[in-house]
Amino acid sequence: MFLHRKELIQPVNVGTPDAAFGQLLLEQFGGATGELTAALQYWVQSFHVEDAAIRDMLQDIAIEEFSHLEMVGKLIAQHTTKMDQTAVGRAPLFAIKGVGPHLIDSQGSAWTAAYVNEGGNVVRDLRANIAAEAGARQTYEALIKHTNDSGSIKVLTHLLTREITHAQMFMKALDSMGKLTDPFFGTIKPDETVNVVFNLSQGEDARGPWNQAPFEYVEHPEPKGGFPPPPVNPDDERASAKPTRRH
Amino acid sequence: MFLHRKELIQPVNVGTPDAAFGQLLLEQFGGATGELTAALQYWVQSFHVEDAAIRDMLQDIAIEEFSHLEMVGKLIAQHTTKMDQTAVGRAPLFAIKGVGPHLIDSQGSAWTAAYVNEGGNVVRDLRANIAAEAGARQTYEALIKHTNDSGSIKVLTHLLTREITHAQMFMKALDSMGKLTDPFFGTIKPDETVNVVFNLSQGEDARGPWNQAPFEYVEHPEPKGGFPPPPVNPDDERASAKPTRRH
Amino acid sequence: MFLHRKELIQPVNVGTPDAAFGQLLLEQFGGATGELTAALQYWVQSFHVEDAAIRDMLQDIAIEEFSHLEMVGKLIAQHTTKMDQTAVGRAPLFAIKGVGPHLIDSQGSAWTAAYVNEGGNVVRDLRANIAAEAGARQTYEALIKHTNDSGSIKVLTHLLTREITHAQMFMKALDSMGKLTDPFFGTIKPDETVNVVFNLSQGEDARGPWNQAPFEYVEHPEPKGGFPPPPVNPDDERASAKPTRRH
Amino acid sequence: MFLHRKELIQPVNVGTPDAAFGQLLLEQFGGATGELTAALQYWVQSFHVEDAAIRDMLQDIAIEEFSHLEMVGKLIAQHTTKMDQTAVGRAPLFAIKGVGPHLIDSQGSAWTAAYVNEGGNVVRDLRANIAAEAGARQTYEALIKHTNDSGSIKVLTHLLTREITHAQMFMKALDSMGKLTDPFFGTIKPDETVNVVFNLSQGEDARGPWNQAPFEYVEHPEPKGGFPPPPVNPDDERASAKPTRRH
Amino acid sequence: MFLHRKELIQPVNVGTPDAAFGQLLLEQFGGATGELTAALQYWVQSFHVEDAAIRDMLQDIAIEEFSHLEMVGKLIAQHTTKMDQTAVGRAPLFAIKGVGPHLIDSQGSAWTAAYVNEGGNVVRDLRANIAAEAGARQTYEALIKHTNDSGSIKVLTHLLTREITHAQMFMKALDSMGKLTDPFFGTIKPDETVNVVFNLSQGEDARGPWNQAPFEYVEHPEPKGGFPPPPVNPDDERASAKPTRRH
Amino acid sequence: MFLHRKELIQPVNVGTPDAAFGQLLLEQFGGATGELTAALQYWVQSFHVEDAAIRDMLQDIAIEEFSHLEMVGKLIAQHTTKMDQTAVGRAPLFAIKGVGPHLIDSQGSAWTAAYVNEGGNVVRDLRANIAAEAGARQTYEALIKHTNDSGSIKVLTHLLTREITHAQMFMKALDSMGKLTDPFFGTIKPDETVNVVFNLSQGEDARGPWNQAPFEYVEHPEPKGGFPPPPVNPDDERASAKPTRRH
Repeated sequence: MFLHRKELIQPVNVGTPDAAFGQLLLEQFGGATGELTAALQYWVQSFHVEDAAIRDMLQDIAIEEFSHLEMVGKLIAQHTTKMDQTAVGRAPLFAIKGVGPHLIDSQGSAWTAAYVNEGGNVVRDLRANIAAEAGARQTYEALIKHTNDSGSIKVLTHLLTREITHAQMFMKALDSMGKLTDPFFGTIKPDETVNVVFNLSQGEDARGPWNQAPFEYVEHPEPKGGFPPPPVNPDDERASAKPTRRH
Repeated sequence: MFLHRKELIQPVNVGTPDAAFGQLLLEQFGGATGELTAALQYWVQSFHVEDAAIRDMLQDIAIEEFSHLEMVGKLIAQHTTKMDQTAVGRAPLFAIKGVGPHLIDSQGSAWTAAYVNEGGNVVRDLRANIAAEAGARQTYEALIKHTNDSGSIKVLTHLLTREITHAQMFMKALDSMGKLTDPFFGTIKPDETVNVVFNLSQGEDARGPWNQAPFEYVEHPEPKGGFPPPPVNPDDERASAKPTRRH
Repeated sequence: MFLHRKELIQPVNVGTPDAAFGQLLLEQFGGATGELTAALQYWVQSFHVEDAAIRDMLQDIAIEEFSHLEMVGKLIAQHTTKMDQTAVGRAPLFAIKGVGPHLIDSQGSAWTAAYVNEGGNVVRDLRANIAAEAGARQTYEALIKHTNDSGSIKVLTHLLTREITHAQMFMKALDSMGKLTDPFFGTIKPDETVNVVFNLSQGEDARGPWNQAPFEYVEHPEPKGGFPPPPVNPDDERASAKPTRRH
Repeated sequence: MFLHRKELIQPVNVGTPDAAFGQLLLEQFGGATGELTAALQYWVQSFHVEDAAIRDMLQDIAIEEFSHLEMVGKLIAQHTTKMDQTAVGRAPLFAIKGVGPHLIDSQGSAWTAAYVNEGGNVVRDLRANIAAEAGARQTYEALIKHTNDSGSIKVLTHLLTREITHAQMFMKALDSMGKLTDPFFGTIKPDETVNVVFNLSQGEDARGPWNQAPFEYVEHPEPKGGFPPPPVNPDDERASAKPTRRH
Repeated sequence: MFLHRKELIQPVNVGTPDAAFGQLLLEQFGGATGELTAALQYWVQSFHVEDAAIRDMLQDIAIEEFSHLEMVGKLIAQHTTKMDQTAVGRAPLFAIKGVGPHLIDSQGSAWTAAYVNEGGNVVRDLRANIAAEAGARQTYEALIKHTNDSGSIKVLTHLLTREITHAQMFMKALDSMGKLTDPFFGTIKPDETVNVVFNLSQGEDARGPWNQAPFEYVEHPEPKGGFPPPPVNPDDERASAKPTRRH
Repeated sequence: MFLHRKELIQPVNVGTPDAAFGQLLLEQFGGATGELTAALQYWVQSFHVEDAAIRDMLQDIAIEEFSHLEMVGKLIAQHTTKMDQTAVGRAPLFAIKGVGPHLIDSQGSAWTAAYVNEGGNVVRDLRANIAAEAGARQTYEALIKHTNDSGSIKVLTHLLTREITHAQMFMKALDSMGKLTDPFFGTIKPDETVNVVFNLSQGEDARGPWNQAPFEYVEHPEPKGGFPPPPVNPDDERASAKPTRRH
């Protein structure tokens, strides 16, 4: 059961409203790396994760992300309180769609659940979450660099901070399963190629620990699969589907 | 510059064509966790990653994923070579759209770049890639469990194996930067709340290393943000926009 | 600030798990008429609605809808606890994407914020909400008709009931502004055609109070706009863009 | 059967072409609240609405909306006849995609049928239509406020007027069924909670007729559903899927 | 200005309702190759095509396609008049979303204007239209092969016929401009590589008139572009963005 | 099997970085008419095309298009190497999402496989490809007209040239089957209306070879289909679904 208190989880005080910056902030309200993606991803995961403690963690963080979505929404609302001619010219989106937040990103694309990465296995879910946190953090850094409003910077820095907190929590959870630094999970045994790496993009090659021993590096990979059989079209009409070339 | 050889990187030999299983395989051709997502994600990242060795790794793996996309496509093509009445009834998709692979998932949704997670920072990119590999591996496991065709199982097991290989490579790369187990990256200093965790979903709480010391656990979080100011609509028309209630 | 309690707002007890019915239930989790659409629509509206009491109502109902989304998610989770061969055959979606709810509709399409209808004016918002409730109620009725599981029917009937409650609340709010039965709102004065209705689809015409007095019914409408000027292409290249026909 | 006359249903005469305003106008050509949404929504409804008179009304209005879509298209075409350097700088969309209307909104997002709200029940359909008209009217008001071109204002005011006309017609139709002010419709009997309202967003609560008698107001709602059972993963692999934590 | 007559442009009489076939028919109502795509594509083109005669043709055909969309809608409506248990089991889409047509394809994906191909040049438009007709014809052929209902076959054969008619008309129009068999159009002069063709997919090569003289065939293409400069990240933070590898 | 060489297929040298132009270039990276659409369309077709020579051609061209996608990506990367305040103001997209290419179009919409046109028949595929080339060429022309950077113009002119080359190759292939100028293909015999053309958009009619002999021109088309039967709702609840009008 959800509950809501009208006080914000942390204060939001914009100094100088700037609708164009408000539009950029949409990236964290209705964008791919935004709080809605995080909140829904973690919360949906909690429906299938069997470990009670990890499930509890997912719900705790999901609810915090909903509270952060609210903070971002309030930031946008405050940045769109002055829609003079300049503001309208720079951010016509709010003139057409109304002020305040909308479920779109900074380019006006509607939020889609295609952003959400979850399903079937808790290790997969937690890795998806570390990625989600990294994307969110990155966008907050970009936003902080493009405003001078100290009130906005304070809020965005807090939100960025919390993404690091969450990333750390997800790392701890993975680590508790031994899966933070171990690529393997699940029940299927890999085949014998698991340590082979291929130099498929050639020229100015540069190496690193990811293609040195114990990896077996194949400098000039060759196809092992042979020529595949030609396509078969099961309802092939001889007369017309097969081209009768005129040359 | 891209080059192509018609031989497959690894063999693909389906024993018993099964169009319904072919439809499930679309999940890894045009689906969220599929090879196209991986190939394009890593390859697009390579345009902005400055470290030459990591960039080379991203390109090497991207090209392998394109070669895997080709293998999945061949699997689907072979599974749709017999479209008798039963096959059409179970997988009408191929009867309507034609046999062979299409850029849609197992539910018929068109592939979208919203699945791709990249941009702005190599740590963010590599974390996104570990997540992508985990999703791909999970779907391959699900596919393997739902077929009895040994030829298909062999191919899918190889593709699953390679996702583990790639995950390991991405982990090595992150580790070489000290970012595999360190949640922090980027240039913005977190605020003082970085170690605080909130019990926002209450009841049957369960704890783990993610909310024990050194984390500071807040069992009954309270809002710190106060009541936000009410919305301001800058082009407020007094007469009609403000509701004049009749009660 | 959001809070969550792990107890459900109302009980959810499925008698006989049926994965195919679970798939239909996705329509109310990640579908157009589902609880996520309602929850987010009302909540986003609350960021720009100036009337404090209506804003409070929007938030109250939004939070209830989140709690209902949780109930629908639990219904789906319970319906996908038995994935035997029959269940997999009828609902392969859960075999591929994992059991439990996902943010997709019953046809596998990802939820999109394009479903959300809000912005700029409280009357518009409330009318959108009455429409949203009607769509949700209609889908619940369809779901109830396609299951025999009494536990599911009980839950779905409750959720349907609450949509009626919410519809009534939105109607009361509109009525308090005098806008439940008055088509007019906003600040722009309509032109002189406001009472004219056109018979533009002709044959077997049937009339009703919507095209009788005081409406002025035009039985054989004629264009009033004259021929529009031909298109002008501002960077028209005379030589090639203008077709030089060979006949 | 559709027919078309090249004369417009009403005149469209732009005084001063302004490509940036032309881009805003796309919102009503290929946007969520635009004429295409309305035309297709009402017309698709007419395929399942059984009442002949309401079906006729839906078709009459749908055809008018197609004629309005044509007017909006002509407005955009006229606003994009002068693509000098300033115009290109402010509305590069037309420089890249060509002048005249496209099936995208003012932010460049492709029109999607996810905007369309219809199906299964005429009351649901009519409520969706009143919402659609309100959205369209709201966007027309926003557009009128952001242009000084009297020719454009005249056209937009007419189009806004007609949305009010249509809203009134849909209201009349709902009223003829007794469903304009009655939230109930359909065949499922609500449960006993139909008059209960919950104060789920707490703090600075404000009341209105929507949560006063005859509604039963629950000021401090408690969960009634108890703790749900934990998730069950039917193809649970004991060995690896269940996390074996290391702490 | 649009007009509508309730009589269909051609008769539609389904013999035996089959909801599953009705679902397949959605491909031509709300699918990529369907009548809505064609109708809107040609009609939107007419707003920017300057040649009056071709513009008239585009409008004539667009209006016919709207009339065909109506026929497909009626086909679907008739195929969904018997929703017994078998029909619901095979086509639950109509049980959930209501009977009759919806703006989705046979897999349940919402129609999107991303299917529409138009803009900027009449030659481009006409080539897009020939492609659209070919796609529509192909889907009609697939549909005809998957029904035994003679009434449906008659309707679908007519609709397929008209796609051929339209293709022929578009070919005539292109031919009148000398652009049916001439690849060149527009105002930019190609560079010197226009006749070079590359053998970039190697192995089991097969040749045809498209890579024989006058084409210059490059059997073993080599990169001509040299190594590109490495990426430059303009807001590069030396300290943290550049990975400091630990090996 | 895919291979990659880090040298570009042709050189890419931007003289003056211009982030706003870089944003326009996204249209050919992640937009409808871009290189990704072409590459994937031709390559996916190759999985079902049975003619070995045409299949080889499709693969050759697909691989070239991937190489062109790489060139466009490098163009964008070079145009976003200077993100000073002006650049950020004109192209904030790169400030938020990171520099370099992304899989979105110039308006920020994610690439979707809905752009891809393929399936079931090689004639259909080749016609789709000629259309794809025409769209790509048109966008390149638009881009060339909106930059003064000679390095960019050189690259774009080359890419435009290759679209003409490919169009010519596809035309040769169609011609080899006798399908370049013959609208008919496939196995279904058209009905007797194949030469009839309808004047459905009336007023200022203009004629051309597409509606002159041997076409039979119907100047005043009448519906031939009669009135369709009214909709039937199979689970019609007499009591409530059928409106009981109150007038």
